[in-house]
Amino acid sequence: MLRVHLLRFSVSPSNLFVQSTKATAFPRLLTSTKLNKNSRSQVRVYSASSGFESSKLLFRQLFEKESSTYTYLLADVSHPEKPALLIDPVDKMVDRDLTLVKELGLKLIYAMNTHVHADHVTGTGLMKGKVPGLKSIISKASNSKADLLIEHGDKIYFGNLFLEVRATPGHTCGCVTYVTGDVPDQPQPRMAFTGDALMIRGCGRTDFQGGSSHQLYNSVHSQIFTFPKDTLVYPAHDYRGFTVSSVGEEMVYNPRLSKDEETFKSIMENLNLAYPKMIDVAVPANMVCGLQDRIKTTI
Amino acid sequence: MLRVHLLRFSVSPSNLFVQSTKATAFPRLLTSTKLNKNSRSQVRVYSASSGFESSKLLFRQLFEKESSTYTYLLADVSHPEKPALLIDPVDKMVDRDLTLVKELGLKLIYAMNTHVHADHVTGTGLMKGKVPGLKSIISKASNSKADLLIEHGDKIYFGNLFLEVRATPGHTCGCVTYVTGDVPDQPQPRMAFTGDALMIRGCGRTDFQGGSSHQLYNSVHSQIFTFPKDTLVYPAHDYRGFTVSSVGEEMVYNPRLSKDEETFKSIMENLNLAYPKMIDVAVPANMVCGLQDRIKTTI
Repeated sequence: MLRVHLLRFSVSPSNLFVQSTKATAFPRLLTSTKLNKNSRSQVRVYSASSGFESSKLLFRQLFEKESSTYTYLLADVSHPEKPALLIDPVDKMVDRDLTLVKELGLKLIYAMNTHVHADHVTGTGLMKGKVPGLKSIISKASNSKADLLIEHGDKIYFGNLFLEVRATPGHTCGCVTYVTGDVPDQPQPRMAFTGDALMIRGCGRTDFQGGSSHQLYNSVHSQIFTFPKDTLVYPAHDYRGFTVSSVGEEMVYNPRLSKDEETFKSIMENLNLAYPKMIDVAVPANMVCGLQDRIKTTI
Repeated sequence: MLRVHLLRFSVSPSNLFVQSTKATAFPRLLTSTKLNKNSRSQVRVYSASSGFESSKLLFRQLFEKESSTYTYLLADVSHPEKPALLIDPVDKMVDRDLTLVKELGLKLIYAMNTHVHADHVTGTGLMKGKVPGLKSIISKASNSKADLLIEHGDKIYFGNLFLEVRATPGHTCGCVTYVTGDVPDQPQPRMAFTGDALMIRGCGRTDFQGGSSHQLYNSVHSQIFTFPKDTLVYPAHDYRGFTVSSVGEEMVYNPRLSKDEETFKSIMENLNLAYPKMIDVAVPANMVCGLQDRIKTTI
């Protein structure tokens, strides 16, 4: 039986150092992980299980054509229960995703979003109705409803693998980047699921949903461009057929974020994009796991 | 300077054993590679360079939305010249692909096809006009024109990495699967670029272009399902947003090819698919690297 644990403990106010216990102990935390974000007094570790030393990532990238959305499936297949999570599932693709999870023999424990999407409806709520015990996750800063409201510095364990949460607001006020850990038993190179904060040779717009080009620029430069250059960048969308990039590439070739902040702000202010066609449907729905009609009974 | 070499040597008539020299020697061949295909008297090794011991794969999967085609970029980035190849490039995406090649600092040496596509025009010919020295590759059995006409058992080197050629006819008479090597210095798990022979939970149709459901069934079962189960399957297309599968998964969950041959043939005979809308344009073009108007001057 997989269990979800929420742990809170004090850390240094200016930097986040999370102390490790042995990987076989429960709870399992991390050694010498330093997060260079704003001070915060609590770090939560979401751990699905423990007691299994080795770990091995199963990873699948999935695409939804209409909104050009990528959904990511990650699982620790060395763990006896093969705990898995989905990042940014789309409501229309829930059956595809859950069929794949079943065929691969995985136990889906988390369905999580990088942010409140404006271009499609999330599948997290529908999945909760189909997968007993599944927990939905979104950032606390998004002001949305979900089972677990995560914050910068939190760690989300699935088996012996985990994702760290980095707050990367600017496209929306609640955007986060999920990144694999920097300790030796975690996948190398690291993998950053950047949502709409950093896209391949692009980024999300900053003119809706509490967006701020100043904030986005600083989020990407302080929280993503500080990862090792070989860190893989997996965005929430791509419109030109790219599937992955790297931090090193985006630092040099991103036509917006490789520039200085003033140039970036000028670019963002002059995009002249159309009003997001799905925003009035998608945003209210996505603030309640995609289940706007069933909020009282389902979430 | 990268050089392309075509090497021929005799092998056992019933099995193909290719003997290795040291990785630092040129030509570099493989140790104890046994190919369980029909007898053949010659094996060719296409080698781009040598003299560099270590090797490291850079891999990118690229997508073309209209025909749902995947193009694959592979490079040996440990090699000083970073030699690279593209599998199944699409004419409309040539600029995207070549820009990426340039940004990554790669030297594109091969543009190759798994088969004569019927749903899009290949980009190999256009690329040849933009990249000096680039060689186009397709199977000899396709009866098409290209710089290098490969056959079952051939090896295509890029730096110290290579792809083996497996003949997998049935969707068309000239289909091949390109697969990474099974020796320790090659990527693990192995990666099979299956074209339309084996697709994720599907396969290519067998009612055009010399197709044969009997032949396709035997190609997949003898040439692909014999790879280790963790071999990654990268098809030429996907229509439901899957990006990769594995041999083990397809052996169990492929709704067509996991069945016995008679059931498979019955399934294929009753697909009732529409006439391929691009076939009359794409096939003649793709038999000449996508340059039907320039065959005499360009190829």
